[in-house]
Amino acid sequence: MVNITAPLRIGYLLFPAFTALDVFGPLNVLNLVSIKHTMTLSLISADLAPVSIDRSILNGISGGPLASSASPNFTQFVLPTHTFGTAPPLDVIIVPGGSGVRDINATQPHVDWLRARLDDDDDEPGLSYVMTVCTGASLLARTGRIAGRNATTNKAAFEWVKSVEHAADVNWIAKARWVVDGRVWTSSGVSAGTDMALGWVEHLFGRNESEGLRVELEWNGLNRTEDPFAAYYGLS
Amino acid sequence: MVNITAPLRIGYLLFPAFTALDVFGPLNVLNLVSIKHTMTLSLISADLAPVSIDRSILNGISGGPLASSASPNFTQFVLPTHTFGTAPPLDVIIVPGGSGVRDINATQPHVDWLRARLDDDDDEPGLSYVMTVCTGASLLARTGRIAGRNATTNKAAFEWVKSVEHAADVNWIAKARWVVDGRVWTSSGVSAGTDMALGWVEHLFGRNESEGLRVELEWNGLNRTEDPFAAYYGLS
Repeated sequence: MVNITAPLRIGYLLFPAFTALDVFGPLNVLNLVSIKHTMTLSLISADLAPVSIDRSILNGISGGPLASSASPNFTQFVLPTHTFGTAPPLDVIIVPGGSGVRDINATQPHVDWLRARLDDDDDEPGLSYVMTVCTGASLLARTGRIAGRNATTNKAAFEWVKSVEHAADVNWIAKARWVVDGRVWTSSGVSAGTDMALGWVEHLFGRNESEGLRVELEWNGLNRTEDPFAAYYGLS
Repeated sequence: MVNITAPLRIGYLLFPAFTALDVFGPLNVLNLVSIKHTMTLSLISADLAPVSIDRSILNGISGGPLASSASPNFTQFVLPTHTFGTAPPLDVIIVPGGSGVRDINATQPHVDWLRARLDDDDDEPGLSYVMTVCTGASLLARTGRIAGRNATTNKAAFEWVKSVEHAADVNWIAKARWVVDGRVWTSSGVSAGTDMALGWVEHLFGRNESEGLRVELEWNGLNRTEDPFAAYYGLS
């Protein structure tokens, strides 16, 4: 576990056609945490150009059953603060999902950066948590560094995530709002990431604090094992 | 009701120290809608500078009991697409909340722009919906244009919102996830905005479509009259 008396260094991995709520749900939880506990935020992408949620960048690649991101007339942009080359040491890396993960070529640099961070033992205290939301788990699986681990992902895209490179080596849990296996935290689709973030606050700072944030956000939460969407999508 | 066969023109009113999830929860719902139905998005602010969620811009003004936005080391920015001067005609205006609404002087231009849009009958078909999330209702109340209307707002900040200029003329509903009164839609705190957005999709496009989006987002929703947070905050 990280030393919570030191500033916590949070980093988000961003790519085009990410899902907005995958990023900003957990991030709103962390925003509130940042008021009470010193934390730094890095928004990391291939370059410093504004990152778009526009799914038309997929150029013919199917966005899959999860129609995340948005049409070209409805684009929002997020400003990265760092590139893969300039990102600082991090205690926590958060990986959102979205249609953009379907573009295997475009996201290969993201997978490579993530793998390098997972392998890096030089930094002290080092990467303590890697958290994925929704189909962000596909990027983590593709690093080949969660073989044998328990993990979960978006329920509508479950079979697709299981099909990416190295994903067959992962123990995918169908019914779970989120899954914790060592430093690897993975959530189900979209909104589940916010429940996971609240669970992570409880893990680090205790139940009173996570409950305080939940009611502040008027968030109607599900706990780690509550997952009505597994049955909805016919997953056992 | 708007003509849903024409492109729907959505506009967000942005100000510094807004709450991220107030914007991006409903916006993720609309992002999905935009894939199926033609819609345009305008992100509107005083100027085109990136809008920060950093609460330190409040400079000594209390953020109130709702500690939204984030510390200076943890800032995210959103890029506006339009200013008050360049914003196009709109069918829907969405107003988020956040600590920034506490700065009455800084948000006066936002209130004035919103009032002008509510008063404008020149545009055809004209503004069909104004929706507020969380303490965004304080900006709408300050326009003086919802006198006699039913409305709700964030439960932790309920008494503060009732104290702003012209708010005494509004019929504030304590127990409601969201409230509809004509073209005025107002939601409770933060996450309630996403439930309201799904309710608006149901109103416009039917229950099948809103339910489809809800399960796609794996969203654990509350309906219009379900509000456990009113009792939590001691509101009758």
